[in-house]
Amino acid sequence: MKSISVGLLGLGTVGSGVVKIIENHQNKLMHQVGCPVTIKKVLVQEINKMRQVDIDKNLLTDNANDILFDKEIDVVIEVMGGVLEAKEYLLTALRQGKNVVTANKDLMALHGSELLSAASEFGCDLFYEASVAGGIPILRSLVDGLASDHITQLMGIVNGTTNYILTKMSNEGRSYDEVLKEAQELGFAEADPTSDVEGLDAARKMTILATLGFSMPVNLDDVTVSGISKITEEDLRYGKQLGYTMKLIGFAHREDEKVEVSVQPTFLSDNHPLASVQNEYNAVYVYGEAVGETMFYGPGAGSLPTATAIVSDLVGVIKNLRLGVNGRSTVSPQFPKRLKDDSEKYSKYFVRIHVQDEVGVFAEITSIFAKYGVSFEKILQLPVKKNEIAEIVLVTHHASLTNYEAILNQLRSLAAVKEIKCSYRVVRKSI
Amino acid sequence: MKSISVGLLGLGTVGSGVVKIIENHQNKLMHQVGCPVTIKKVLVQEINKMRQVDIDKNLLTDNANDILFDKEIDVVIEVMGGVLEAKEYLLTALRQGKNVVTANKDLMALHGSELLSAASEFGCDLFYEASVAGGIPILRSLVDGLASDHITQLMGIVNGTTNYILTKMSNEGRSYDEVLKEAQELGFAEADPTSDVEGLDAARKMTILATLGFSMPVNLDDVTVSGISKITEEDLRYGKQLGYTMKLIGFAHREDEKVEVSVQPTFLSDNHPLASVQNEYNAVYVYGEAVGETMFYGPGAGSLPTATAIVSDLVGVIKNLRLGVNGRSTVSPQFPKRLKDDSEKYSKYFVRIHVQDEVGVFAEITSIFAKYGVSFEKILQLPVKKNEIAEIVLVTHHASLTNYEAILNQLRSLAAVKEIKCSYRVVRKSI
Repeated sequence: MKSISVGLLGLGTVGSGVVKIIENHQNKLMHQVGCPVTIKKVLVQEINKMRQVDIDKNLLTDNANDILFDKEIDVVIEVMGGVLEAKEYLLTALRQGKNVVTANKDLMALHGSELLSAASEFGCDLFYEASVAGGIPILRSLVDGLASDHITQLMGIVNGTTNYILTKMSNEGRSYDEVLKEAQELGFAEADPTSDVEGLDAARKMTILATLGFSMPVNLDDVTVSGISKITEEDLRYGKQLGYTMKLIGFAHREDEKVEVSVQPTFLSDNHPLASVQNEYNAVYVYGEAVGETMFYGPGAGSLPTATAIVSDLVGVIKNLRLGVNGRSTVSPQFPKRLKDDSEKYSKYFVRIHVQDEVGVFAEITSIFAKYGVSFEKILQLPVKKNEIAEIVLVTHHASLTNYEAILNQLRSLAAVKEIKCSYRVVRKSI
Repeated sequence: MKSISVGLLGLGTVGSGVVKIIENHQNKLMHQVGCPVTIKKVLVQEINKMRQVDIDKNLLTDNANDILFDKEIDVVIEVMGGVLEAKEYLLTALRQGKNVVTANKDLMALHGSELLSAASEFGCDLFYEASVAGGIPILRSLVDGLASDHITQLMGIVNGTTNYILTKMSNEGRSYDEVLKEAQELGFAEADPTSDVEGLDAARKMTILATLGFSMPVNLDDVTVSGISKITEEDLRYGKQLGYTMKLIGFAHREDEKVEVSVQPTFLSDNHPLASVQNEYNAVYVYGEAVGETMFYGPGAGSLPTATAIVSDLVGVIKNLRLGVNGRSTVSPQFPKRLKDDSEKYSKYFVRIHVQDEVGVFAEITSIFAKYGVSFEKILQLPVKKNEIAEIVLVTHHASLTNYEAILNQLRSLAAVKEIKCSYRVVRKSI
């Protein structure tokens, strides 16, 4: 029986995990795909480095062409990271008729369409389940499990670092800086946490999810992004009083075949299924017209979950290989991209304002909202603080982004408004 | 382009949902499978009955053979329910080379193996995603998404009726009888609720899940079942005091290649992902050695979610048809069945006991646990009630079922023990 040969680009923690799973689960793999699976060659930067996994040194190479042009290699697995080099390698692999599995979200968010067309052109599979929420088979569920539904909303907690930080801040009443520092010490946050805490990592994943879920070619540039670094303990405390939990939410919504995609700190009502997703866990909430609410929960990262997703993709590729149908299950986006403009983006908002404690100020503020037809769901007026500053927390009913921004601008121009302390999107359970 | 013809067995609420989805999403289906999909014939009991869906009367038949022996029909969808007749029809369909999609959990739990072998023998697909937790693509995730992992635990809230009842009892402090009555009035529970409340429905679904997840032919008879009808408000209140939420949990565990499967009322620690699944929602929690914890959440029933799952299966069948690979993705169980005996089933337990308020009783009770090497995680001794009856709540560390049952028997034989009020399995988050 012909064995399937795999070339691995990269041998970091995820790559080592892939090697371990393929070696340890050889019997299970055999049972699933009907033939042995062998790692034939592994691209590394330095052949003589100490490795996290026991591997025959003869398999290692520092020349990608040893893999990309090896006619015996059927599948290339990319776990090296980075964008430009990885893209070149994968395009070469596809041109050589090799099927590809990748865990690279940056690559897929930036060049997914180009790579998928190449895969389709050369009759190869390109699978990338591991690029979004490693431990959750969400892409597969969108493509297959919810295939016949019309998905109108995708909401994701798709970054473990920020969810860890927000969970600690919320549960323990600690500051962002303090929790970030602890997360860095524990290895949950990088030394330079920008990509995580400013929402960029989440935006890449939402690009991939929205493209698949809405069958529309969404780009990273289409995603409005804001991060968590300015969230204060006070914000969270007020939110809690009103029954909200703060999460960094990737939000993708489709209405009348127009979409919006954003990543922003969001107050979820406590009974929203995403509100109970704690610590470094990820979850993706999907609303389909027929199915209603579903949610997929699991570890978002980690070498073994990610490696598991990669090997599951590998199993898919090999099944297709044995059936001779590679490249035929790739479904390119069905609809042209149509983005909502700001007047079509509706949301509820939580806004916390410091005002001078004077007669008539509250009326002045609320009349601005009224002018734009925006009413309130909740109002929290707090005792006057020192210096005659009063604090007002408002939760609006649905407002368009255009109107809401106009309201904020007018509020800022009022003499009695000292500061708009914060403003967040609010999502309640029933949509 | 050849159109794919579908025969539908049954036209109740789910069948009507299938008709609606296929009609309303014709474009999307075309895009996914590359050809039109037509419902050619529908088996009904009575042709002239009023229907929930607009359907050409010429498509209706009351003779199954019109579908089973129609050479133009490629796929048979079974949504008629029942076991024996449905089984005969599907075996006939498979023998005629027709692919089958079914939502019938009773049929799959009782005769799944036989039907799957027939499908494999005649080179047909047999898909049954809709048979377990309609709105959650869990079977697909087990087969594909977690393909390369070794699953050791499956826990499911797989019955919406009982979850609705327990949620209401727990949140509102109401009695089982009262909430059941309300659920019946609201249509969440059947007039004869036995199959739901006594855990039989959940047991059927766990049979299907365990068979797939562990790749081992588990039978319905292998599942230990107890229901929720004896749970009291008091039980739930004490649980809450200790940080537990009561759920009817389908529990499937594998250790050293031996399995146990049960359905029983279980106290989950409040931070367990399943604890926050409320009302009629379902969820399946999966623990894999590599991936760790994942959970799939969604509506368990309902005609549209179930119909969505069916049409997604239909899409899978048609893709296979167009590739000419039907029947080749069926993976029969890999391992022979090996069940744990009671001495190998370990759990923590919650037990509530009424005792005579006398000196030495507590020592007498705890010494029985000690004799079997079972220690306590939590002890709650409550103020003496009327008639000198004291109430003791104990939560044990892990005990084997054999030992735990021996302990209960010895407790019952103590003169000072008036009654063992209740005893439940306890599952904490970390396993």
